[in-house]
Amino acid sequence: MQVSVLRGVLDANDLIAKENRKEFDAHGCFVINLMSAPGSGKTAILERTLRALGGQLHAAVIEGDVLGTLDADRLIPFGVPVIQINTDPHFGGECHLDARMIRNALAALPLEGVDVVFIENVGNLVCPAEFSVGEDRKVMVLSVAEGEDKPLKYPLMFRVSNLLLLNKTDLLEHLDFDLPDFRANAARANPMLPIIELSARTGQGFEAWIDWLLREVAATATGRAQCGGI
Amino acid sequence: MQVSVLRGVLDANDLIAKENRKEFDAHGCFVINLMSAPGSGKTAILERTLRALGGQLHAAVIEGDVLGTLDADRLIPFGVPVIQINTDPHFGGECHLDARMIRNALAALPLEGVDVVFIENVGNLVCPAEFSVGEDRKVMVLSVAEGEDKPLKYPLMFRVSNLLLLNKTDLLEHLDFDLPDFRANAARANPMLPIIELSARTGQGFEAWIDWLLREVAATATGRAQCGGI
Repeated sequence: MQVSVLRGVLDANDLIAKENRKEFDAHGCFVINLMSAPGSGKTAILERTLRALGGQLHAAVIEGDVLGTLDADRLIPFGVPVIQINTDPHFGGECHLDARMIRNALAALPLEGVDVVFIENVGNLVCPAEFSVGEDRKVMVLSVAEGEDKPLKYPLMFRVSNLLLLNKTDLLEHLDFDLPDFRANAARANPMLPIIELSARTGQGFEAWIDWLLREVAATATGRAQCGGI
Repeated sequence: MQVSVLRGVLDANDLIAKENRKEFDAHGCFVINLMSAPGSGKTAILERTLRALGGQLHAAVIEGDVLGTLDADRLIPFGVPVIQINTDPHFGGECHLDARMIRNALAALPLEGVDVVFIENVGNLVCPAEFSVGEDRKVMVLSVAEGEDKPLKYPLMFRVSNLLLLNKTDLLEHLDFDLPDFRANAARANPMLPIIELSARTGQGFEAWIDWLLREVAATATGRAQCGGI
């Protein structure tokens, strides 16, 4: 019984996610659902990414947090449209974004001329992996400070992700984090998951990430054009 | 409608939590619900705590994870009873422990002679704060690598906790973490929250944490005896 209720919630979510997808496609937007545990550096990565993109792509950001506008406030200086979703009102707040929240946010976010939408999910390695929001790619962030065992403990997040950004590599020399061990664990959860090591603090590795991003955006736009879309 | 359903879930949980409480009381067990984001160091803290306690207290551990027995395996060498709860095969698994899961675990965990039970919750700063499991104290762990803004973004976790262990202080010199800023943020969420700074890696700060633990266990046992309990 519990299973069928949950399945129903996820099916309903997927329907709305498809509606979001149509709207993103109609505007030619490439959409990234950025997920991680709390404090792994999603916002710091976005700050540096927006700076690195410069005029190459027009970006917009949807920020998901239980409460407050801290992350959105950090991105306003970059001059891109930013919408904050608070999952808060009931009890402790929802621990993930769902398609309906994104749907509501889109009503306030003009997509004309936007090439890429970054959706920063609530910090959580469990439930965000279960709720699609209409994204093109799921990108997860893991900080090396979180330990190399995480793929074994939160496998779904690794399994559904299209790219892993391994952040805070500037801390590696101060940690016992075993990189080959981590890569083996990640491969057990998802052998096809590409991993880019980077540091939002120093900028190391950002070239590879920006390359990946530009390539994916271009490939998706080409795919849409070939399908007779916009 | 959504609110009343959620309220119902939490009320039902609280009923079972009270049953757990009775069972813990009947055996004179002091119970800690240990909560944090993924990778903040809960298990490393438990390892060092069990070693530090030596014969002073008899401990038992209930480990909560979405999947696997990695953390439980790490604690077996300490010779204490360890029960692993996996929060389940449905979709991504539950992102928190609830009272019913603890109730089921107790069927397999003999409490005779146990002074303190550590319940290591699933790594998540949102939902574990909403579900009591029958504990005496909620203790949260935050790694300094997660940033000083977390009390503003996940206030309920800070609000319900009786103690905060600020872990990985050995990394402070390599981070931009602003300790006074963090303390101010934590005080905004919960002005009464005591904070112990420690490092599970170096052992710094463990004396204060073990002192707190021994004091709380003793005070609770005295309280029970005065109430005509066991």
